[in-house]
Amino acid sequence: MTILEQTIAAIRPADPAAVAEARAHQDRLTKPRGALGTLEEVAVRLAGAAAVSPPPLPAPAALAIFAADHGVHAQGVSPWPQEVTLQMVGNFLAGGAVANAFAAQVGASVTVVDVGVAADLDPAPGLRISKVAYGTADLSQGPAMTVRQVTEALEAGIAVARELVDQGARCLITGDMGIANTTASAALICAFTGQDAAVATGRGTGVDDETLERKIEVVRRALRVNGLTRGPDGADASQATQAVPATGTAPTGQAVPASETTATTRAVLATGTALATQAAPAQTMASAMETLAAVGGLEHAAIAGFILGGAAAGVPVILDGVIAGSAALAAAALAPAVVDHCVAGHRSAEPGHAVALSHLGLRPLVELELRLGEGTGGLLAYPIVCAAVRVMHEVATFDSAGVSDKEA
Amino acid sequence: MTILEQTIAAIRPADPAAVAEARAHQDRLTKPRGALGTLEEVAVRLAGAAAVSPPPLPAPAALAIFAADHGVHAQGVSPWPQEVTLQMVGNFLAGGAVANAFAAQVGASVTVVDVGVAADLDPAPGLRISKVAYGTADLSQGPAMTVRQVTEALEAGIAVARELVDQGARCLITGDMGIANTTASAALICAFTGQDAAVATGRGTGVDDETLERKIEVVRRALRVNGLTRGPDGADASQATQAVPATGTAPTGQAVPASETTATTRAVLATGTALATQAAPAQTMASAMETLAAVGGLEHAAIAGFILGGAAAGVPVILDGVIAGSAALAAAALAPAVVDHCVAGHRSAEPGHAVALSHLGLRPLVELELRLGEGTGGLLAYPIVCAAVRVMHEVATFDSAGVSDKEA
Repeated sequence: MTILEQTIAAIRPADPAAVAEARAHQDRLTKPRGALGTLEEVAVRLAGAAAVSPPPLPAPAALAIFAADHGVHAQGVSPWPQEVTLQMVGNFLAGGAVANAFAAQVGASVTVVDVGVAADLDPAPGLRISKVAYGTADLSQGPAMTVRQVTEALEAGIAVARELVDQGARCLITGDMGIANTTASAALICAFTGQDAAVATGRGTGVDDETLERKIEVVRRALRVNGLTRGPDGADASQATQAVPATGTAPTGQAVPASETTATTRAVLATGTALATQAAPAQTMASAMETLAAVGGLEHAAIAGFILGGAAAGVPVILDGVIAGSAALAAAALAPAVVDHCVAGHRSAEPGHAVALSHLGLRPLVELELRLGEGTGGLLAYPIVCAAVRVMHEVATFDSAGVSDKEA
Repeated sequence: MTILEQTIAAIRPADPAAVAEARAHQDRLTKPRGALGTLEEVAVRLAGAAAVSPPPLPAPAALAIFAADHGVHAQGVSPWPQEVTLQMVGNFLAGGAVANAFAAQVGASVTVVDVGVAADLDPAPGLRISKVAYGTADLSQGPAMTVRQVTEALEAGIAVARELVDQGARCLITGDMGIANTTASAALICAFTGQDAAVATGRGTGVDDETLERKIEVVRRALRVNGLTRGPDGADASQATQAVPATGTAPTGQAVPASETTATTRAVLATGTALATQAAPAQTMASAMETLAAVGGLEHAAIAGFILGGAAAGVPVILDGVIAGSAALAAAALAPAVVDHCVAGHRSAEPGHAVALSHLGLRPLVELELRLGEGTGGLLAYPIVCAAVRVMHEVATFDSAGVSDKEA
């Protein structure tokens, strides 16, 4: 088996016994039943993922910021020069970015991973160079990557997750840096969910109306050029009209049937219990790889690998914003059970993020109209996740504290 | 001047120069302008409150949990026995409550203050006994407290705030414990905002439909009996139909004209700058005291004092849930500028809380359907507030980091 296949095979769905025990324990604690709202669900989810209740405290945490450039930048989808990706990598390494300040606040380590910056980087403490390419090709002209590049980027993400867990991390937080990467995210979200480009595409770091219109058109073109457009009846037009090679170094891409992914993912979340299958069917897996190759970014693929790697290592993964959300759609297409190991850190201002989270069945913990990326939303959510788990370890029960229960 | 008057006189409205400087600084940082969403507003707000930009880091934090009982418990508005207030005080002191776990997570100290528990408490580390009465009278039968009791409770809260700041706290977080205290909160919110009881009254810690109906009726009766009912035209019926004594040991209470409070409060928030007046007019102040006396709780009055005391000492106050929200309405009626020093930690599941926050013009940081009180929502928000301020101190500017700015 390849590293990717081994990783996918190691991902266990939520353990129903641990989920049930966690729910029962919540009800014995000295608080009105359900009074911790969403936090009770977070604790139950982490118990299911860890297959033990209470789940381990998710500390310490490690943030990995995956950086890469995008050929689609040439289409004028961002007001920022492409070299800002490289400059911000320098800022992260110098400790001067918002992600550094937030990581310091919550005690998380910061690792920067070059998976596709369009320049050579000098080695530096805190930097891991796993460059797959000097940026992607322009997704609006054809596939952004080859399937081989996607595999390399996925495995780079898996390797980072493994290494951080080996070093002691008990919670992983996703981060990203890549000028123009919200364009790739929007295209991935459309491809995986069937949503329209006008709904899933947003202003990213703040584009004006004219640029937003262009960005939507670029996403539409990317889907069309790569055979990922759905027909007006909701069916996958690419399947009806195009012959798509199953493998190849320059894939045309193929949409994952969204309805199928949704149904399986939602089944996990609605019941909080196990899925029979851990890996997606081979056909769906190939499609997911090809979709990533067609309209993704190198950091999207690496983050998908990072999520899979964390789940395979039995460590929860806090997803940051729309980049992570779109990468998680790819990860879930490869291994549906991975969603049981994910917590949605926040919901960004980018409209496609809500589409992705809804498709994954995840409820975000923080909603503060952030639109920065870097892992900032995930970092803000981290103490909330810790607090949810800490309750399971430290809070007294009605019996142990001698507190009267509610009258029946 | 009384301690209360001195405290109110010491509260400064937001400093316009610090607000302007904080906004300008946000725009120089290496992030797209506005990309930190609500967090930018939090940092700017704290700069205004501290009258310096960047504002000091709000650390360490101190949580004070004000505990008291309520005569209205006799009306069957809660399924929990009244002695749970006392039992939970024991749980806080033993470190076994959710507030203790959350405080440990964020590094906040915990002080429990008995301002009105219906039993004598033994001295214990972490407990401050400032008992004003053994619970309130039944607010549905007449005034819950005398104005003298309200003054004592307000000054107890001020004293706790001063003491914690003297001990080094640079951020205060409100907490509460009092079986039946969401009933008093709902009545206060109706009295201060003019909202209907059916809108502002919720299920508290989880009452059934029948109890909710009774609770709404109890709130209605409390407003009527205490002369706080508004006529169908929105006018304050109590002013038209009742002669209310300006002072007295058994006040009948009087509604603060909501439109007036709203207008002044909103003016502060909309502009982010100074109000000319720091204290409310004498007539409004007397009304606020009488409203608190009529339908408040001893912990509501103490929390209002705690908020005023923190603001007077120049330290930001993170408000917890609906109890704090209703207490903040009273504090804002006494000193409109106090709102500039408050951050809404979260929005609870209790519907009256949203009414109170809207009236105060505050946007909550955490919305996770918590309905526990104790300060839990405020504690969850605390690291977010710290992160917002930390950005102002630690993040590089475009110039200092050599990062290219967005193209114009």
